[in-house]
Amino acid sequence: MSGPTSSTDRPRVGIVMGSDSDWPVMRAAAEALEEFGIAHEADVVSAHRMPQEMIDYGRDAAGRGLSVIIAGAGGAAHLPGMLAAVTPLPVVGVPVPLAYLDGMDSLLSIVQMPAGVPVATVAVGGARNAGLLAVRILAATDPALQERMVRFQESLREAAHAKGEVVRREAGGAAPRVGF
Amino acid sequence: MSGPTSSTDRPRVGIVMGSDSDWPVMRAAAEALEEFGIAHEADVVSAHRMPQEMIDYGRDAAGRGLSVIIAGAGGAAHLPGMLAAVTPLPVVGVPVPLAYLDGMDSLLSIVQMPAGVPVATVAVGGARNAGLLAVRILAATDPALQERMVRFQESLREAAHAKGEVVRREAGGAAPRVGF
Amino acid sequence: MSGPTSSTDRPRVGIVMGSDSDWPVMRAAAEALEEFGIAHEADVVSAHRMPQEMIDYGRDAAGRGLSVIIAGAGGAAHLPGMLAAVTPLPVVGVPVPLAYLDGMDSLLSIVQMPAGVPVATVAVGGARNAGLLAVRILAATDPALQERMVRFQESLREAAHAKGEVVRREAGGAAPRVGF
Amino acid sequence: MSGPTSSTDRPRVGIVMGSDSDWPVMRAAAEALEEFGIAHEADVVSAHRMPQEMIDYGRDAAGRGLSVIIAGAGGAAHLPGMLAAVTPLPVVGVPVPLAYLDGMDSLLSIVQMPAGVPVATVAVGGARNAGLLAVRILAATDPALQERMVRFQESLREAAHAKGEVVRREAGGAAPRVGF
Amino acid sequence: MSGPTSSTDRPRVGIVMGSDSDWPVMRAAAEALEEFGIAHEADVVSAHRMPQEMIDYGRDAAGRGLSVIIAGAGGAAHLPGMLAAVTPLPVVGVPVPLAYLDGMDSLLSIVQMPAGVPVATVAVGGARNAGLLAVRILAATDPALQERMVRFQESLREAAHAKGEVVRREAGGAAPRVGF
Amino acid sequence: MSGPTSSTDRPRVGIVMGSDSDWPVMRAAAEALEEFGIAHEADVVSAHRMPQEMIDYGRDAAGRGLSVIIAGAGGAAHLPGMLAAVTPLPVVGVPVPLAYLDGMDSLLSIVQMPAGVPVATVAVGGARNAGLLAVRILAATDPALQERMVRFQESLREAAHAKGEVVRREAGGAAPRVGF
Amino acid sequence: MSGPTSSTDRPRVGIVMGSDSDWPVMRAAAEALEEFGIAHEADVVSAHRMPQEMIDYGRDAAGRGLSVIIAGAGGAAHLPGMLAAVTPLPVVGVPVPLAYLDGMDSLLSIVQMPAGVPVATVAVGGARNAGLLAVRILAATDPALQERMVRFQESLREAAHAKGEVVRREAGGAAPRVGF
Amino acid sequence: MSGPTSSTDRPRVGIVMGSDSDWPVMRAAAEALEEFGIAHEADVVSAHRMPQEMIDYGRDAAGRGLSVIIAGAGGAAHLPGMLAAVTPLPVVGVPVPLAYLDGMDSLLSIVQMPAGVPVATVAVGGARNAGLLAVRILAATDPALQERMVRFQESLREAAHAKGEVVRREAGGAAPRVGF
Repeated sequence: MSGPTSSTDRPRVGIVMGSDSDWPVMRAAAEALEEFGIAHEADVVSAHRMPQEMIDYGRDAAGRGLSVIIAGAGGAAHLPGMLAAVTPLPVVGVPVPLAYLDGMDSLLSIVQMPAGVPVATVAVGGARNAGLLAVRILAATDPALQERMVRFQESLREAAHAKGEVVRREAGGAAPRVGF
Repeated sequence: MSGPTSSTDRPRVGIVMGSDSDWPVMRAAAEALEEFGIAHEADVVSAHRMPQEMIDYGRDAAGRGLSVIIAGAGGAAHLPGMLAAVTPLPVVGVPVPLAYLDGMDSLLSIVQMPAGVPVATVAVGGARNAGLLAVRILAATDPALQERMVRFQESLREAAHAKGEVVRREAGGAAPRVGF
Repeated sequence: MSGPTSSTDRPRVGIVMGSDSDWPVMRAAAEALEEFGIAHEADVVSAHRMPQEMIDYGRDAAGRGLSVIIAGAGGAAHLPGMLAAVTPLPVVGVPVPLAYLDGMDSLLSIVQMPAGVPVATVAVGGARNAGLLAVRILAATDPALQERMVRFQESLREAAHAKGEVVRREAGGAAPRVGF
Repeated sequence: MSGPTSSTDRPRVGIVMGSDSDWPVMRAAAEALEEFGIAHEADVVSAHRMPQEMIDYGRDAAGRGLSVIIAGAGGAAHLPGMLAAVTPLPVVGVPVPLAYLDGMDSLLSIVQMPAGVPVATVAVGGARNAGLLAVRILAATDPALQERMVRFQESLREAAHAKGEVVRREAGGAAPRVGF
Repeated sequence: MSGPTSSTDRPRVGIVMGSDSDWPVMRAAAEALEEFGIAHEADVVSAHRMPQEMIDYGRDAAGRGLSVIIAGAGGAAHLPGMLAAVTPLPVVGVPVPLAYLDGMDSLLSIVQMPAGVPVATVAVGGARNAGLLAVRILAATDPALQERMVRFQESLREAAHAKGEVVRREAGGAAPRVGF
Repeated sequence: MSGPTSSTDRPRVGIVMGSDSDWPVMRAAAEALEEFGIAHEADVVSAHRMPQEMIDYGRDAAGRGLSVIIAGAGGAAHLPGMLAAVTPLPVVGVPVPLAYLDGMDSLLSIVQMPAGVPVATVAVGGARNAGLLAVRILAATDPALQERMVRFQESLREAAHAKGEVVRREAGGAAPRVGF
Repeated sequence: MSGPTSSTDRPRVGIVMGSDSDWPVMRAAAEALEEFGIAHEADVVSAHRMPQEMIDYGRDAAGRGLSVIIAGAGGAAHLPGMLAAVTPLPVVGVPVPLAYLDGMDSLLSIVQMPAGVPVATVAVGGARNAGLLAVRILAATDPALQERMVRFQESLREAAHAKGEVVRREAGGAAPRVGF
Repeated sequence: MSGPTSSTDRPRVGIVMGSDSDWPVMRAAAEALEEFGIAHEADVVSAHRMPQEMIDYGRDAAGRGLSVIIAGAGGAAHLPGMLAAVTPLPVVGVPVPLAYLDGMDSLLSIVQMPAGVPVATVAVGGARNAGLLAVRILAATDPALQERMVRFQESLREAAHAKGEVVRREAGGAAPRVGF
């Protein structure tokens, strides 16, 4: 069974974003990977400010041992799609919301890719799910990791049950208000 | 005439939501039911985190004596529609707004159900109206409850009249501003 | 068990719309009711062109024996909400799409009702589901009708299974295309 | 030339809204009318909470001497359109923004009226312009008032010139930033 | 009582549009005015292709005897707002839908005017209502014309009643479909 | 190296959809898999019409040897998200556009999943990319398949070059138009 | 004064697009340039299918003598922004509408560029304006070309006047319709 | 090589906006020009409040030595398009976001210009990019300025690299969290 990340593990997942201002959103992807003990790396790779390095990053990704790339971007969010154009790896895109438009621009810029070059898009701001999707992708051919995902899903169920206790208690405590 | 909720009444309406974080929105449904003395229950039932329990909840609802289900959910809001798929009861859906997109995603995910499986959708964040709609549904075959709904509507009119007094007073007090 | 509609049954459901041009959409509500043998009536009741008659229709509905009102409207779709303001009955609103905006205006005008006056909104153009929702509402206190709804849901499952046969056959017949 | 509003003047413009919570937005309409010395009234008239009074208000408006109605509403904003259905007067609609959807629901519910019953719609939250539009409507057959509107437009120009001074000064003061 | 338009009447309403391609939409405004016997003129006045003539048109409108301007435009629809900037007359704006975006761009470009310069906006493609709104504006100080508008509204009611006959007949003729 | 699909191969990818009416869109996913010789199956699995079978399908998928599920759905598109809730496999969601709203409802219903349960969403109608994404996922741990993906991407480049020839020829042939 | 394009002129403007399917939209840019006698080239340069060639195209553009690049793209439209990242030239972006979403995805993907890398965006499908914008850019430092642009704008005014004649004739011919 | 702005330089770029309230957004355009040493001016020029001066500003711009106009506006944002109608210069439009609608109204009002009159539109609130686009336009025929733009783009790359250091450090410091 795969254990926690060690600094000597070669990264299996690359998490990239256009700016360090995306990190508060994107770190949730890293945390999800850590919960499953998946070695990963995180870096700024900007489609618009360092286009050649961005292309090089995508081209070298598979050769360096990466199996999945997670890319977050906002506005005219080109990073996930451009990486998908230069790597055969699955690329997960995270629409990062900016100050205006609630991430709708980021979502459409990432998800509406032309036929031939897919990006696996998650929800606006959904970096945690990007990490979990990367785990599922790796687990597709790794029975031990898949088993951990099954147990993680069981933990979600248990947490939901616990939340139900909160609601049942609060709902019960609400004194009936009658009449008008 | 139906009186206030007692802890020994069997619930007629089930209020469910995907997480306890939905309770601050959804409690308004419970309060509306309490105003009409309708026994109800509230719980966390998550389509995505406890799918089998969710289906069991829907399947057992009618047999347990529920007549209406109110389900609140946000984002890819599957709970109301999935419950409607497994119960013959009327299901009222409440689109809960999340941090982005102002509940438009929740609204469309709930209201755009395919032919065969309806969800009675109310406004974004409209949990109070969900409760009142449940009352109307129960009142459709309960003359005494229907009479209470008529009186409730009269109370709305009276409250609106009182609000008019506020506006008339403030409008009258506004000193004329002239010239430019 | 309730049988088919007879011309001598008193209508339980009123289907109204702003114009006869809405009938091609709204007739699906009537057809759904007929499948369940629910007596109903259909008429043009325009909030904007005959406002007093519209209000009278709503006010008299419960007294005439109606239990549910289904109202379809497009654009600035005021009919469902205005009827809900003058009747204690549950009102089901159907957003009828017009030539522009794909029914988004109709949907928002119907669903975004203020607290106190709910409208049970279905999908854009979803008149069939409006009829089925009326059946569920009536069935909430009618075990025989509820049993028919359960069987209807089983028929949906069987139809879906039959559709699966189509897809399996077509998918199997697609000759593998290889190489590039 | 028309002077400032006096408490003994018969109102020419009625300003109505669904709730006193709309007054902070709608008072700007009253202030605009006061700047032009147009006698007006303001009140709560709710389409959904007091529908018959709403219809009566519209029906009596012309007979009471009103020449224009300004109606503000939010969400499923039915008030302006319903008033337009029962009065031959021009009705100006103000989309009041609610907590979600930025007033897009209010705008579409007001502006998308069916052929036959127009509402003169202004911007989301544009109550001041509603007042100014009422002035223009009254001025269409009142040369003295029209002349005041011309002078008001001149005052807008002068105010814009003054604002230019601010920008020119601030822009000039910005020290050149050079190099990278 | 005002009679039909004669070629010798001085126009009271000016209908302008950015291109002759808008005429198929805008002619409905002219037809509405003709039904009420309001003399009017129609012309192409383009904000973007003949800006100075557009401004001159607006400036001269009141002096030439016009009381209302109706302006239709699509896309970045600047004509109504620019005319409102140079005339004290009420300006009615008609959002003309273009090939894409269903007129949402036209609507927002027309209705979202800044404080100080209102445009009375009607529905996307709502030229007929623009004509009727001009009639209401003129009728605000013309009792005979207002009386005609009241009768017009009665004719709308009668037409709606006739449409109800159609629906009642078709609904009645629908043979009950039973079983599944 | 993996060869073309054979009827005796055990499927690695399951393609499911809510109705056979989705097949004309979804078959492009099957075709993409066939181009890469990936054994797959296709079936109707409806979240709303056969919820228990849907859950069973998801639960059994990994055990039956599937590595990826592709799910297409329209409107309140619950199928991809519900399957993701009951399987540890990566689920690719295809928003199928319906008659109204251009697939925006389908897109939001699929992509806006809550934290914990990701769906890898592709473009509206983007079934071909769903198939290609499944290939990339399988190729993440299959060097031979990854090599085929690289060659596929080269073929896209070559096809784009060929298309450039078309444009260069047509652009060159356009006779200069001068004067105005 | 600049004359018509000759096959021996070195191109000043490059028109590129992601596929030959964009040519029917994009050719209008070429035609506008030809009207002004601006030498240009047109080609397929795909951000997603030939990313390195795309970057090379942008990098070499200025050195080859191009002064402006016009790039058209649809959906997740990355081409204009990526070219702007690798060239110091002004890049004009044309949102090409696809089968769904009316080009709103293309528009947002092109216009919402991050600070540092601008794209000069025109209307959805606005390739003719892209060509005219390129002319204005070149004319900013070319008095003779600027003079031609002034005359072109005069020709727009004259064409608008001619269109007015059409409307005036059709409007005059509309026989008054009276009574109801 | 062009140096910093001096108060004696004749402005090459005019920055205009409808109100001084737009200056906090628009000053970023001035700052970008200052970084490149481009002489510029800034002023309030309101399409709606001083239409004739606005037209005069546009008409005189080229004659006064301006080469580019940058115009910011919000809501029914007519300023950029109206200026483009009266000048042959390239006009850059900045959609300024207002309190509601997140600038979507401003964006559509600016970008959706009719054929013949282009506006080079940048992102919502993208004034800095408007300034940089003006620099690119001026640099199209100014090799020294173009060289500075190339170096500016290099500085963007270096800044992005520095940001990567931040992310790599923070990502590395995140202690692995395991188990659930």
